[in-house]
Amino acid sequence: MTLHTQPVMAKGFRCASIHCGIKEEGPDLSLFISDEPASAAGVFTRNQFPGAPIVVGREVIRKGVLRAVVVNSRVSNVGTGEQGIHNARRMAAAVASSFDLPEDEVIMSSTGVIGRQLPIEKIEAGIAQIDRHLCTDPLVGAEGIMTTDTYPKAISMEVEGATLTLIGKGSGMIEPNMATMLVYILTDAQIPAAALDRMLREAVKDSFNMLSVDSDTSTSDTCLILANGLAGPVDHTRFAEALKKGCIEMTRLLARDGEGATKLLTATVEGAKDEKEARFIAKALINSPLIKTMAYGADPNIGRILMAVGKCTECTISPRDLSITINGTLVYENQGRVNFDEGKVRSLLEGDHVEIITSLGVGPATATAYGCDLTNGYIEENAAYYSS
Amino acid sequence: MTLHTQPVMAKGFRCASIHCGIKEEGPDLSLFISDEPASAAGVFTRNQFPGAPIVVGREVIRKGVLRAVVVNSRVSNVGTGEQGIHNARRMAAAVASSFDLPEDEVIMSSTGVIGRQLPIEKIEAGIAQIDRHLCTDPLVGAEGIMTTDTYPKAISMEVEGATLTLIGKGSGMIEPNMATMLVYILTDAQIPAAALDRMLREAVKDSFNMLSVDSDTSTSDTCLILANGLAGPVDHTRFAEALKKGCIEMTRLLARDGEGATKLLTATVEGAKDEKEARFIAKALINSPLIKTMAYGADPNIGRILMAVGKCTECTISPRDLSITINGTLVYENQGRVNFDEGKVRSLLEGDHVEIITSLGVGPATATAYGCDLTNGYIEENAAYYSS
Repeated sequence: MTLHTQPVMAKGFRCASIHCGIKEEGPDLSLFISDEPASAAGVFTRNQFPGAPIVVGREVIRKGVLRAVVVNSRVSNVGTGEQGIHNARRMAAAVASSFDLPEDEVIMSSTGVIGRQLPIEKIEAGIAQIDRHLCTDPLVGAEGIMTTDTYPKAISMEVEGATLTLIGKGSGMIEPNMATMLVYILTDAQIPAAALDRMLREAVKDSFNMLSVDSDTSTSDTCLILANGLAGPVDHTRFAEALKKGCIEMTRLLARDGEGATKLLTATVEGAKDEKEARFIAKALINSPLIKTMAYGADPNIGRILMAVGKCTECTISPRDLSITINGTLVYENQGRVNFDEGKVRSLLEGDHVEIITSLGVGPATATAYGCDLTNGYIEENAAYYSS
Repeated sequence: MTLHTQPVMAKGFRCASIHCGIKEEGPDLSLFISDEPASAAGVFTRNQFPGAPIVVGREVIRKGVLRAVVVNSRVSNVGTGEQGIHNARRMAAAVASSFDLPEDEVIMSSTGVIGRQLPIEKIEAGIAQIDRHLCTDPLVGAEGIMTTDTYPKAISMEVEGATLTLIGKGSGMIEPNMATMLVYILTDAQIPAAALDRMLREAVKDSFNMLSVDSDTSTSDTCLILANGLAGPVDHTRFAEALKKGCIEMTRLLARDGEGATKLLTATVEGAKDEKEARFIAKALINSPLIKTMAYGADPNIGRILMAVGKCTECTISPRDLSITINGTLVYENQGRVNFDEGKVRSLLEGDHVEIITSLGVGPATATAYGCDLTNGYIEENAAYYSS
């Protein structure tokens, strides 16, 4: 279950990204397609203003079978009413027609500006000629779904003779709830849809649902898994483990490449009363602007960590039992600051990963949350963003 | 109940701020004192790592009588264990001794760095000579309690022949829960402690508890009210109205002067199912980094507003009934963008106040939350902050 250094595509899947004219330049339309019908499962944003692709996608996924995923960037098809629903269906219909697939086995995503209609004719024209661009490099598919991501994200691994490929995008408006951002997981393992659904939900719980770039929940979050069976059956337990591992790795990539981020920030909470509280406190830590700016400034600010744990007023916290470790150095225990080497910790914090571990000492539960630092880059990117 | 253009002190109260040597320069120690015993009430942070002054202050306030409030800035006396408690008591004892007051009628606050012991000898030496600096300008008291505030904050008003003076500080680590930051309210009205307590909690609920600069809850939040009775009895209903009005005005000042802020951001939610949901959604709006950066960038980004309302997944929201007004201009209704004058709205958003009103159309409840934009100034202030 080690990651490939260069991601490869699961057998029987291909992808393409082209420029169809929604963005001024660069790829803005991607297709992922399976040679065979694939069992499929998906989880979607719980935001109450979901995009049209989410509304339609929830219908499509019920069948548990997919052949293709079509995705555009730049315009999210959110807040677009009936016409948006109609346009989402037209995306699927265009793929079904071009590739001679059942329309209800094609699912779609859109990402980008909210409240604008899709330029559907451009997308249809793009789909009509995308077949000749199909290839087996997952990074090609990843490139077409980027918005403010700084690089395309795809990873893969072998499990039990099958290949598991994950393709994702993240960046901003990210605190997923139920699913996240856009992540497509393609595998040639043979697994029924119901089992895929269970495995996906379990993996998402500890990975994408523990990610927050900025505490804002996108209206387009989607995570899909397609299993076309070409590599035959696999041990479900081992596959589920690999899936969770892959999802966590993708979560780390998405967190590290959050808008404006210069480093990955992870918070692990140990010894919490129960899993719910462990997750809540870990999220509070990575969402705290004062901890995020502390990570950016590479300062081991114990007070901010105490504050962020303590503001979880509904959780069970025993101040005398709390200890804190920053990048491997114990900095706080027995209700007091430990006399640690500040220079050493500061230099560790200058690196690519700020890791905070808080041990609560009140119970058995553990959770890890994934985020990033908060920098001028985030402000500049989002203050300069024009919605029209 | 109109605000004075220049704040004045309620009768029988005086204040002083001096430099006692905790900060490198500028006032760092303040005293507020009443000539007569005052009925008193207070609310404190719900953070589970409260500072020593909060622990001691909760004991002191039980008596319902105060003569003096002593406050230092630069060191918060949080995360300081038994020695911190001892030092908080020493602050009160020093005031009691200098002014011949009962020790249990002196309350203390400390604000600043967490996890460092107070330089208590400097504070005691300062208290020993603060009497000669006492004056009746509330801005003098406000100046000594500042941390990263850019100016001292005090307001006052007349109500029923009595004077109500509010002195506060805010800036960062601010999403109060129960009380907030440091706010001292001094009045010469005659009101029993139990009534004061009720009025204070009611006022705080719609003012300081609806404020968030950065969603982080300070470990030192304190709001106290002292009523020395020198102006005689007042109508409780009218006084309570004035108190709430004053607290909301102070909330606006604190929000507008949040760390790095260039403008006030307010979010009003109308037509919510109930008050709890109205408050929750209004808070979600002002805490959203994407809305805060949109305010900074002066962009009427409807998508981000839909996102922030929609991410309140436990609230009752009916997309078809939602409408949105930005600075007085209707921008969204009937599930679609209104064709509004974008140039005009952008120029309004360039001003000092971004005002978002969302009408949910699902119930009778309304709430307003107060915040500020998110700017490079916040990042710079907090990434550069060294905890040692």
